[in-house]
Amino acid sequence: MSQEELQGYKGVALQALRQAGAKIGDLIRITKNGITYEGILIPRSELGDDKHIVIKLKSGYNIGVRITPNTKIERIGEGAKPTFAAPPPPPKKPELPKVTIISTGGTIASRVDYRTGAVRPALTASDLYSVVPELGDIAVVDAEILFSLYSENITPEHWSEMAKCAAKHIERGVNGVVIAHGTDTMAYSAAALSFALQNLPVPVIFVGSQRSADRPSSDAATNLIGAVTAAAYAPFAEVGLAMHETISDTSIIIHRGTKVRKCHTSRRDTFKSVNSKPLARIEGGKIEMLVEDYAKRDSSRKLVLKPEFSEKVALIKFYPGMNPAVIDWYVDNNYKGIVLEGTGLGHVGRYCFDSIRRAIKNGVLVTMTSQCIWGRINMNVYDQGRDLLALGVIPLEDMLPETALVKLMWIFGQTDSLEEAERLLRMNLAHEYSERTIYE
Amino acid sequence: MSQEELQGYKGVALQALRQAGAKIGDLIRITKNGITYEGILIPRSELGDDKHIVIKLKSGYNIGVRITPNTKIERIGEGAKPTFAAPPPPPKKPELPKVTIISTGGTIASRVDYRTGAVRPALTASDLYSVVPELGDIAVVDAEILFSLYSENITPEHWSEMAKCAAKHIERGVNGVVIAHGTDTMAYSAAALSFALQNLPVPVIFVGSQRSADRPSSDAATNLIGAVTAAAYAPFAEVGLAMHETISDTSIIIHRGTKVRKCHTSRRDTFKSVNSKPLARIEGGKIEMLVEDYAKRDSSRKLVLKPEFSEKVALIKFYPGMNPAVIDWYVDNNYKGIVLEGTGLGHVGRYCFDSIRRAIKNGVLVTMTSQCIWGRINMNVYDQGRDLLALGVIPLEDMLPETALVKLMWIFGQTDSLEEAERLLRMNLAHEYSERTIYE
Repeated sequence: MSQEELQGYKGVALQALRQAGAKIGDLIRITKNGITYEGILIPRSELGDDKHIVIKLKSGYNIGVRITPNTKIERIGEGAKPTFAAPPPPPKKPELPKVTIISTGGTIASRVDYRTGAVRPALTASDLYSVVPELGDIAVVDAEILFSLYSENITPEHWSEMAKCAAKHIERGVNGVVIAHGTDTMAYSAAALSFALQNLPVPVIFVGSQRSADRPSSDAATNLIGAVTAAAYAPFAEVGLAMHETISDTSIIIHRGTKVRKCHTSRRDTFKSVNSKPLARIEGGKIEMLVEDYAKRDSSRKLVLKPEFSEKVALIKFYPGMNPAVIDWYVDNNYKGIVLEGTGLGHVGRYCFDSIRRAIKNGVLVTMTSQCIWGRINMNVYDQGRDLLALGVIPLEDMLPETALVKLMWIFGQTDSLEEAERLLRMNLAHEYSERTIYE
Repeated sequence: MSQEELQGYKGVALQALRQAGAKIGDLIRITKNGITYEGILIPRSELGDDKHIVIKLKSGYNIGVRITPNTKIERIGEGAKPTFAAPPPPPKKPELPKVTIISTGGTIASRVDYRTGAVRPALTASDLYSVVPELGDIAVVDAEILFSLYSENITPEHWSEMAKCAAKHIERGVNGVVIAHGTDTMAYSAAALSFALQNLPVPVIFVGSQRSADRPSSDAATNLIGAVTAAAYAPFAEVGLAMHETISDTSIIIHRGTKVRKCHTSRRDTFKSVNSKPLARIEGGKIEMLVEDYAKRDSSRKLVLKPEFSEKVALIKFYPGMNPAVIDWYVDNNYKGIVLEGTGLGHVGRYCFDSIRRAIKNGVLVTMTSQCIWGRINMNVYDQGRDLLALGVIPLEDMLPETALVKLMWIFGQTDSLEEAERLLRMNLAHEYSERTIYE
């Protein structure tokens, strides 16, 4: 039996699997202390220990079982085959709108290969049609695999590539773009493209899923259908993010790229619009607009692409006992902007004031948001807030801290002038600031 | 006219106020571009500019008006007098439970002095009875002013003082303690005392307000009545936090100190229990318990006071493009613990792995929480999560990032041993971990 057939296993675990005659992808049964676990044997990370065996349970979740002398392992069959069939794509209906799906990776763009346990990109156009054949009735869909990344590995450089790729497809005349993305940092990327793609003629819709498409409870297909529907038919031309509105499968909600946040580690309705209404709801194939002040779809409008970002911007979450020297450290490392995630209406401890004063004297743009997440900051209520304003800290109203970070990264991709940076920061470029109507 | 009577004003603003014969505390009218503002002239920060005049409007909010050549200023009267009367306290009813209110500052413990504009502590016992005479029917209330701090200035050293002060009153036999606190960092302090005050015989209830007691819409009185009711009569003996349950005045909710977070900059119901039910609801003077697994009040139980905290713990919120060298910086500055606020189920970019590995090799306890806030982390779902576990990162289940920070600060106040620290971290000391029942 070759090493590859038990990839990543070593020591006690390797020995036990060999004795059972099991290999990666086999269905195995592990009995220990009276408990029986059944599942597909999957490979381990090279960094793993030598004591655990990892199997994928029927539920789709992986568990590790520690091997002890009284653990029994049996090979009980061949692994389940991938549930993805690969029928020929449905005939395209050329009269339908054209939508490009750009795949960057993440759960929605992946399927587990049960033979190797590896997760691999699945979003070729023919994969898509085989998983979600309904797409063929909505739009003529093409797909481009741009990256295959867990979204926590996506950086501002990748935002640039995504923006350029979306622009390329928009310029060749598609009616909308969908970007399939891991959910972890999808809201950051949606904010980034909200600034990088200006004067959009058509919608750009981010979409992810909380469960991979090969699991029975997957939200991938419904989210994708909602995103493609919005890209093809929605009356707005903005950057949106399409996910489940609730934990049921009945409606998909489109959030604004600058006002959305992942708010639960595992629920399907994890994304929430913060300090803003969502753009639209899709239910039963119909699109209902939820706001009035949106940019209208207009295919004659000329896209303005501004894809540069600077990584010399830091997000610092304040907390009691925070060491203000971390602010000095960023200043000494030539950072251009700092987003403070302060408390309440926009405060930080007075023991941070010297470092903030020094940052501003050194030409760093220091801005204030709130770790409350919901609500608007108001630094005029208490004298300590007024003192921060007097130091030159810029209050960012009801902007999300994450959106503020992305906006500053984008601004310093456009300019090195502090004056111009401040001018851009105060402009409402992509609904990152809301009017005072909600929750007030 | 002395400088003090126009404290903080200079230049154009000072000149305009002198011409009008106005002084701090006067009612003035400012007319500019056809708009009229009326309010009490309040002092400015020494750091302020020379162009704005700040008045307190009838609504209680302060605004700054910029002085231009066509701005007209009139003094129209004496300032309103403080609305706090000071009648003699109601006769104490010695048969009622005894409650101590420890005041640390913040909106609930303050009132604006209209003559000077300064905010000053108001929570002497007689102030309390004059503002909230109902307290006399609930308990025999004593008050101690421990600090008079905006809560963003509170540090782990202050947590120690609060814990010792609460212990002192518990040891002299009160039936409950209330701690009045600014709302900005009240949840951090509540978590801190949840760890520092072990084996509590009676409840310790934090309370704040979003509007000061001298404003018509204040929530101070209702929150205080709820907190004193809980301290005097609740069947539990844990650290709680009492605030409005909704935006109306009908019910006060008591959150667990380790599971609560300020989630809105200005709403009265800003505090929410996260990944946990609240402890109790108080409505119409009645206490309804909302959980079953709580420590019961027992005045014979012996309090264990462990008030030490270490500030050598950092909270780092991960974001795309984060510079991993900031982790190295904390390690090089002899930090003992790091709480990562990762994405989704508990992830950070692979570009942070080298710094995390180095931190752990240097004996730093590196832990993982989620910036989603809601939900439980699960680092076994994706191989990148499993790699982080293999590096030695400790997953903190459904613990709030802020509570994780406080717990690590408390742990390193108790021990320098990494092994003991890890043991304490994995113990569920104050319901900081929940069972897998909610939202799953």
